[in-house]
Amino acid sequence: MQFANCSYLCPMKTEIINIGTELLIGQVVNTNASWMAEQLNLAGFSVGRITIVPDDHGEILAALGEAGRRAAVVLITGGLGPTRDDITKKAFCDFFGTGLVFSETVYRDIERLFKIRKWAVSETNRQQAFIPENCRPVTNRNGTAPGMWFDGQRTEVGGLPLADYISMPGVPFEMKAMMTDHIIPALKEKFRTGAIVHRTVMTQGVGESFLADIIEPWETALPENISLAYLPQPGIVRLRLTGTGPSEESIRKVLANEIGKLEALISEYIYGYDDETLEEVVGKLLREKHATLATAESCTGGYISHLVTSVPGSSAYFKGSVVAYSNEIKEQILGVLPASIEQHGAVSAAVVAEMAIGAQSQLDADYVIAVSGIAGPDGGTEEKPVGTTWIAVATPDGVSTQHVLFGDHRGRNIRRAALQALNMLRKELV
Amino acid sequence: MQFANCSYLCPMKTEIINIGTELLIGQVVNTNASWMAEQLNLAGFSVGRITIVPDDHGEILAALGEAGRRAAVVLITGGLGPTRDDITKKAFCDFFGTGLVFSETVYRDIERLFKIRKWAVSETNRQQAFIPENCRPVTNRNGTAPGMWFDGQRTEVGGLPLADYISMPGVPFEMKAMMTDHIIPALKEKFRTGAIVHRTVMTQGVGESFLADIIEPWETALPENISLAYLPQPGIVRLRLTGTGPSEESIRKVLANEIGKLEALISEYIYGYDDETLEEVVGKLLREKHATLATAESCTGGYISHLVTSVPGSSAYFKGSVVAYSNEIKEQILGVLPASIEQHGAVSAAVVAEMAIGAQSQLDADYVIAVSGIAGPDGGTEEKPVGTTWIAVATPDGVSTQHVLFGDHRGRNIRRAALQALNMLRKELV
Repeated sequence: MQFANCSYLCPMKTEIINIGTELLIGQVVNTNASWMAEQLNLAGFSVGRITIVPDDHGEILAALGEAGRRAAVVLITGGLGPTRDDITKKAFCDFFGTGLVFSETVYRDIERLFKIRKWAVSETNRQQAFIPENCRPVTNRNGTAPGMWFDGQRTEVGGLPLADYISMPGVPFEMKAMMTDHIIPALKEKFRTGAIVHRTVMTQGVGESFLADIIEPWETALPENISLAYLPQPGIVRLRLTGTGPSEESIRKVLANEIGKLEALISEYIYGYDDETLEEVVGKLLREKHATLATAESCTGGYISHLVTSVPGSSAYFKGSVVAYSNEIKEQILGVLPASIEQHGAVSAAVVAEMAIGAQSQLDADYVIAVSGIAGPDGGTEEKPVGTTWIAVATPDGVSTQHVLFGDHRGRNIRRAALQALNMLRKELV
Repeated sequence: MQFANCSYLCPMKTEIINIGTELLIGQVVNTNASWMAEQLNLAGFSVGRITIVPDDHGEILAALGEAGRRAAVVLITGGLGPTRDDITKKAFCDFFGTGLVFSETVYRDIERLFKIRKWAVSETNRQQAFIPENCRPVTNRNGTAPGMWFDGQRTEVGGLPLADYISMPGVPFEMKAMMTDHIIPALKEKFRTGAIVHRTVMTQGVGESFLADIIEPWETALPENISLAYLPQPGIVRLRLTGTGPSEESIRKVLANEIGKLEALISEYIYGYDDETLEEVVGKLLREKHATLATAESCTGGYISHLVTSVPGSSAYFKGSVVAYSNEIKEQILGVLPASIEQHGAVSAAVVAEMAIGAQSQLDADYVIAVSGIAGPDGGTEEKPVGTTWIAVATPDGVSTQHVLFGDHRGRNIRRAALQALNMLRKELV
């Protein structure tokens, strides 16, 4: 096993242990593990194994010993709350053969937290300031359970493993703040040399395998210190470029150059960078233009409106929406001509364009997205199968329409139609 | 270790191993593990540990050996696809010291699948019909990679562990179908005696700890063969009752009796049973009444409309929605009086009631939900802090309003307001 400082070309191995019976009865999805794994990888550390054990003294002891013999750093969550009898602390005391001591630092952190919340520190909370003798406390700015960092022995002493152990509470937002504020920077400081930089290119409207075919020559020619990961989500594919090297500045330059080449290949699919959402990008563009937006939705049922209004401050540019599930609403509120519905059907270029133009004047908006489609699972025909979708975008200069055919899953069709429509609007805005 | 058939009072121990490097770089959240753990628990088997290992021969071998020494049954997912070089199969061959044999059964399954899809069976696909000699194949009706069941040795032979090993592909819908169709029933058949029955009571509008206080006397007095689990989600708390005993019929009787007592205590919070969603319950009630629904939304921004239209067939009762983010839309489309906004503000009983009544006539619906509030993070005042929400429900008989104060998280406020509003409508409908 290698415990020397890790160069930027050899990621040091870590392991994650999540303690919690709730994870073993399927009550809670273990989002902590995937988030922690992502953060560790982003910081240049590989994760060799994730282990989930119940709130059980013996099981925790066993897992600590096993992980510490395989990895250089073991990160642990859970079992630290006041209600669960601080089972992890006891396990660490037995593991290292130490006892609990009162930590002034932790107690001050708890006092500070309670001052903000205007609560009195109870005896139960005071107990949380007792931590194993051989650890350094890690501040928890969102809760009373402290983090605990046990520095590794570096040489095996009395059968004890060599790893650093870092224990955190299982509450996601407490754990995340501790990782981001302190643990990840401290791990980099302690174990890494060199720098690591990530850039993410966000694409919409293109499948993973099709994308891979287009960019293959570029991918093959990437410099050795740059790696690429495809991160697909429904309707979205994120391309994450990771660069390693001696200095951040030099990596940034190489990444910018490579992203430039990528843009030349797939510009029509790129909507943003570094984990921006389409609704955020569209919101930013509307703000810049001092323009307003409204939606007229049939099959998406208000989902586009929901995405747009999920962005804080969206009331500055979003006027509202008409969800026209019935044809009467399409006609009476949005002014769609009954003849258009009769001749072309509600899912058609003519109707979706009239919906957009109607909403533009009725809701007094500069830009309008309109969608009409067959989300499924029923309602499809030979001519217009489930997944058939028409999208219109009205701008101050006119209206354009687009036809798309998605699959047969209602939820995914709604999501994909919404993203496709937002990206169509984005292209009009830039 | 106990390998006798498991009685209904002693859940037999299982373990889960998820193979996949994508789980260790945080690219994918491990929803397979929580789903499998839940299904196993529902079937009366406890899960002792979950282990996630990379697509690496040595790591897989190690994990198989360790898990099989602790548990009676080990369930494995991942590493079976045609692209990943069938790493799990090779690991099993080495683990048991056997080779691959061609399985006619698996090949027929693959042929059947390709016939439906009208594709030709390629050589790569044919390779998937080779499986380790000592396993029984488990049909995969949604994909080409077969499941593999290695029956346990029962007595340790030549250092091999005793457990049953069951290997499945990592694709969630393939794995889920195999678990549901075959593996869970076969595990019950092989290892369980007696019956297990679950009932879930769905509640909205009450926190977990408050609920616990109300039902404590009932919970304490539950019969020994009935256990209770609190399963909270944002805005919803599910109460799951699990009964074990010699016969399903007798357990069902006891559960019905206990749920009757529970209903007497918390009827106002119960909206449904057995994992129904509020939008499904509301949809069912509207269908029964042959009544129609519309929404008029401000702070929820179309999210209620989205929930309602997520239910297949909702076009039978849902007319549509006006998302009135701007005051002009409240006035011009919904007919809210400018004087009401001026006197009471847009977040008020008067305005939300006028929104509901306006939508009722404009969208021609029997029932209307209207919501106006301050979702945050900005826009709060001393008098109306972030989280302040007014809800109105208009029925054919009139309109009623409700005031609620949520927290300071935008996304959660939107979700909680929507659920509160749907439950308010449900109460009007029953």
